[in-house]
Amino acid sequence: MDERDFTAGLARFFGGGKGVRLGIGDDAAVVHNHGEASVVCCDPVVEGVHFTASTAAHLVGRKAVNRNLSDLAAMGAQPDWLLVSLVLPRSYPARRRTQLLTGIRAAARAGGCRVVGGDVATHAGPLVVTVTAIGHAGQRVLTRGGARIGDTLHVTGPLGGAMAGHHLRFRPALREGAWLARQPAVHAALDVSDGLLLDLATLLRASGGLGAEIDAAAVPVRAAARRRAGGDHERALRAALGDGEDHVLLWAQAPRVDLPAGGPLSARARRALGVVVRAPGLWLIRDGRRERIAPLGFRHVLGAR
Amino acid sequence: MDERDFTAGLARFFGGGKGVRLGIGDDAAVVHNHGEASVVCCDPVVEGVHFTASTAAHLVGRKAVNRNLSDLAAMGAQPDWLLVSLVLPRSYPARRRTQLLTGIRAAARAGGCRVVGGDVATHAGPLVVTVTAIGHAGQRVLTRGGARIGDTLHVTGPLGGAMAGHHLRFRPALREGAWLARQPAVHAALDVSDGLLLDLATLLRASGGLGAEIDAAAVPVRAAARRRAGGDHERALRAALGDGEDHVLLWAQAPRVDLPAGGPLSARARRALGVVVRAPGLWLIRDGRRERIAPLGFRHVLGAR
Repeated sequence: MDERDFTAGLARFFGGGKGVRLGIGDDAAVVHNHGEASVVCCDPVVEGVHFTASTAAHLVGRKAVNRNLSDLAAMGAQPDWLLVSLVLPRSYPARRRTQLLTGIRAAARAGGCRVVGGDVATHAGPLVVTVTAIGHAGQRVLTRGGARIGDTLHVTGPLGGAMAGHHLRFRPALREGAWLARQPAVHAALDVSDGLLLDLATLLRASGGLGAEIDAAAVPVRAAARRRAGGDHERALRAALGDGEDHVLLWAQAPRVDLPAGGPLSARARRALGVVVRAPGLWLIRDGRRERIAPLGFRHVLGAR
Repeated sequence: MDERDFTAGLARFFGGGKGVRLGIGDDAAVVHNHGEASVVCCDPVVEGVHFTASTAAHLVGRKAVNRNLSDLAAMGAQPDWLLVSLVLPRSYPARRRTQLLTGIRAAARAGGCRVVGGDVATHAGPLVVTVTAIGHAGQRVLTRGGARIGDTLHVTGPLGGAMAGHHLRFRPALREGAWLARQPAVHAALDVSDGLLLDLATLLRASGGLGAEIDAAAVPVRAAARRRAGGDHERALRAALGDGEDHVLLWAQAPRVDLPAGGPLSARARRALGVVVRAPGLWLIRDGRRERIAPLGFRHVLGAR
């Protein structure tokens, strides 16, 4: 099963409707009750998939929270409340339980929200931690679907090599997301979790089937990915394009518009790594050459993950 | 690990705070944003714990939704939105996935709410379906903590033998909960999921450490439990007191107050099955005798579950 296809299928299956501004298929859903908008999302982390049996439990808790906060960040929303559902292995030690909860609580505090509910079950299988985040947005919610031809593409931080540790310790870009949502020149955004190319393809599809050119020299590569690649620039680039679990924000903004000075963006993030083009597809610009790249093929063929 | 103790520990661990009227430890949490109250809860169902590998997938989806709707019902709240997190076994057949989603969607529709978000992961372990329900209450939220000495105790439906099928097919008592929340004479309520005696003990503890007397002859026994017990009345009673997964509402109301006529309650539900007393503990009144019963001991010794 391709989870992305299945998730897209879910959106069709459950549909939208009255009071739902965005449903399944964006980073989070926006629902309206009594005139107030809540931004809500729910993501599981699973032992053997998102962490291993030997991952420190407080980092598991941290990741479970921050994956959801990163989804809210991509909408420009701020988290208020968390619900935590724990499915624990029967033999899970009490000490690790406490570490898990400590990691959850610390990440909630760092994100400015708190755990208000949840439930616990034990079973014969692996640890599953499912966090639901409920937040609010300002005047505007950022979505994946607003990129336009000619927009420049940017990310809030470096990419690649997240599995060396970043995937457990990343900081959700809540300030960046909220700031970007206030800029009319910013047209679309999402959380880079599956890999830059895959997530970019999602953004382009949601924006009406556009394409993009990526400037290989402008892709910010995380130090861990460079180290792991030794001197192999090609390998480092592949890691940045396809590794995933970066949890930085990718956004599209109007060309030749400087975002206001100040705010949480680094100078690096203000520089474009690519541009949105009319023709669907992804192209890599490298040493003056323009080569078409397939996001799935790229990942599969090169085994970057 | 005793999950109930652990859940109580969670409440202490995460604490309450500004904007949180109820946190972990009630059926659902009530949070306030911009003056509006949302009632939120999140419960997982796990293969091998809440259903088996051979349970029809649409019933798994139905149960996953309705457990959460029953939690909202116990607060007198109505569901608006659901988030669904699926952790699927790698080999889970596409046909069963569709059946699972169909069950989720049908239960959401029956409950008057809709699925607006969620996420999917696959892993090497068993199926885990975690549903988050977000709803709203009227003027008043029912809690576990308001029972008073002398209050009579009632349930919305019969008890026992839920594992014969009811645990997959129950209807959450949303209408009953909303109606009860509008009656000032109703002081406390909760969802009977762990068994009448265990959940009653929770209600009494939350109400300041009170006790209760149960009239054995007044406990409504589900037909499935009677059938399973053959002619053994003792066995049928044990099932009703301890089996759990009934997902009826248990409530305490002021004595000698008739609730208004009309509304969703059956005549049976209006008759008391017990009374709240000052001395902590549970007593069973049977054939004129008064015997102390320990909820955990009862379940463990008799193996009613």
